[in-house]
Amino acid sequence: MTQTVQGYAAHSHDTPLEPFSFERRDPRPDDVVIDILYTGVCHSDLHTARNDWGFTTYPVVPGHEIVGRVTAVGSGVDKFKVGDLVGVGCLVDSCRECEPCRNHLEQYCDNGFVATYDSTDKHDGLRTYGGYSKSITVSDAFVLKVPENLDTKAVPPILCAGITTWSPLRRWKVGKGSKVAVVGLGGLGHMAIKLAHALGAEVSLFSRSPGKADDAYRLGADKVILSTDNAQMQAAANQFDLIIDTVPYEHDVNPYMPTLKLDGTLVFVGLVGDITPALSTIPMLFKRRNVAGSLIGGLKETQELLDFCGEHNIVSDIEVIDMKDINEAYERMLKSDVKYRFVIDMATL
Amino acid sequence: MTQTVQGYAAHSHDTPLEPFSFERRDPRPDDVVIDILYTGVCHSDLHTARNDWGFTTYPVVPGHEIVGRVTAVGSGVDKFKVGDLVGVGCLVDSCRECEPCRNHLEQYCDNGFVATYDSTDKHDGLRTYGGYSKSITVSDAFVLKVPENLDTKAVPPILCAGITTWSPLRRWKVGKGSKVAVVGLGGLGHMAIKLAHALGAEVSLFSRSPGKADDAYRLGADKVILSTDNAQMQAAANQFDLIIDTVPYEHDVNPYMPTLKLDGTLVFVGLVGDITPALSTIPMLFKRRNVAGSLIGGLKETQELLDFCGEHNIVSDIEVIDMKDINEAYERMLKSDVKYRFVIDMATL
Ligand SMILES: [Zn+2]
Ligand SMILES: [Zn+2]
Ligand SMILES: [Zn+2]
Ligand SMILES: [Zn+2]
Repeated sequence: MTQTVQGYAAHSHDTPLEPFSFERRDPRPDDVVIDILYTGVCHSDLHTARNDWGFTTYPVVPGHEIVGRVTAVGSGVDKFKVGDLVGVGCLVDSCRECEPCRNHLEQYCDNGFVATYDSTDKHDGLRTYGGYSKSITVSDAFVLKVPENLDTKAVPPILCAGITTWSPLRRWKVGKGSKVAVVGLGGLGHMAIKLAHALGAEVSLFSRSPGKADDAYRLGADKVILSTDNAQMQAAANQFDLIIDTVPYEHDVNPYMPTLKLDGTLVFVGLVGDITPALSTIPMLFKRRNVAGSLIGGLKETQELLDFCGEHNIVSDIEVIDMKDINEAYERMLKSDVKYRFVIDMATL
Repeated sequence: MTQTVQGYAAHSHDTPLEPFSFERRDPRPDDVVIDILYTGVCHSDLHTARNDWGFTTYPVVPGHEIVGRVTAVGSGVDKFKVGDLVGVGCLVDSCRECEPCRNHLEQYCDNGFVATYDSTDKHDGLRTYGGYSKSITVSDAFVLKVPENLDTKAVPPILCAGITTWSPLRRWKVGKGSKVAVVGLGGLGHMAIKLAHALGAEVSLFSRSPGKADDAYRLGADKVILSTDNAQMQAAANQFDLIIDTVPYEHDVNPYMPTLKLDGTLVFVGLVGDITPALSTIPMLFKRRNVAGSLIGGLKETQELLDFCGEHNIVSDIEVIDMKDINEAYERMLKSDVKYRFVIDMATL
């Protein structure tokens, strides 16, 4: 048996998203059924809807920044009950047995995690459909508790943009006394600033235009470094423990490398592809600097992040839209015309 | 006052090295005067002699893998006495006050370390001249104790080729249970295999030719992976905690990246310049893999390495040459025709 759910789907790479009804599984013993309140709009949604990466299977229902309330739970679920405010992020399952899974790093599952949309359930073979929909059914191990004190509609981006920057902040042990720099001020970058600041770090934003400074300071940055200004870049030499590079396309990272201190790391969290222009190893050799990548985050650390946000009253800066305006929102995202994340009010579907 | 010392120098980028006599300082209170027994021949010697990097000031006396006996000590030296077997590596001084220096990482000195040759002493402004000479005078903080039980003539390469691979093995905590791979089987690569093996790691060599397998196994490798064989490369996926890349010129590292496990690191220890072809960030993102650089090693860890080599009876595989044959040795090094390091018997000068 299945349940019919209303949503919004893309049916091809060049047609707009439109209303779509589809089937979700009846809850299994470990499942939580969630009535979706708000879903954030991630760049991955747009890339998948338009098949920019070449992996999309249509129809696709995007959305992996999901917040809602529990309407039913399977017989084996203790952790959640009807009425709980919960979230679902980018992952809805993984093998749960490999070394990364056992270490709460499901995003690096050796057998491949099951994505919230455009993926296939390992048990029943049904396609996964995301949060641009009225409800979703997810195994309890992949459902997160959302603090009630937060502004609910501004929580969804924490589940992708937030955790994607939180995970490297934790991996590289950022805290009081750390110096962190952020490259790129978009959905990810604005969360990186808020979170690094709340962790007690001194936070800088590298920016190519002075116009972003006011916003950066408001979000919690201590410094804004104009990356086009040689004097500012040289003054920043040997400063940072961690640089979080959120820019989601190929760009020159060589100017940032000398601003890392000994043993510092520049971590890519965006889908950059190749590092071009070519990365020079000289600044790496002469201060043992590192370059790394980091992908979303595991379930345990996502829960830790939500709890941290609850304690520190951190949410995303958002613009709420109606479901029918999603195609227009995509166009605005392509022009970076959003501060800093669209969130769909699912009551409008 | 100064002391006249005999050595071998290059006087221009295109003339052979030839006998040269020059002045060394009289010992200062912290100095150790060393009668040089053996000096290893590093690729940096050749690059500096020929000004391949564009930084050479002529005349230059190369040599930074130096082993000899103490013939005199300054009034303030307690650590060494006449007759001690000692070594000098790539560094003869640093600021001693910056954070890296205080953390025994003099090779990353914020104010620039003083190199054993082609550098300038910070106190008297005299040029530094290296180990292709009869004696050298070095501050006690930059002199190392050499275990008497080792084959003395095979010790010098430990001071550059050895420490350059030891430092990343220690930095990335290689030990029992670790899996390490080495790229390139030359002076550095052969020491990397010996040291990683002695630390208890399982060691693999990536090789482009099957001909190197026997030697790799003899040196301590557990596996040899033919990097031109796709099946072998795929079987090696997600294996290594650390890859030490010793290749000293631009080369494609993308094939090695998927063989790193979650959180694994590929570290460059050779002077590669730019990473070309371009490094893909995809394998970095999907297993949080790292790329780093590492430069020689600090004095404390060099002493630890010498002590470790003494305990485990590890030396370099060498070919002893006469001083007058240095130019011929350089030509052979350019053809990789040495297993695995030339050492000059300084009695032949
Ligand atoms: Zn996302
Ligand atoms: Zn797994
Ligand atoms: Zn060397
Ligand atoms: Zn220093």
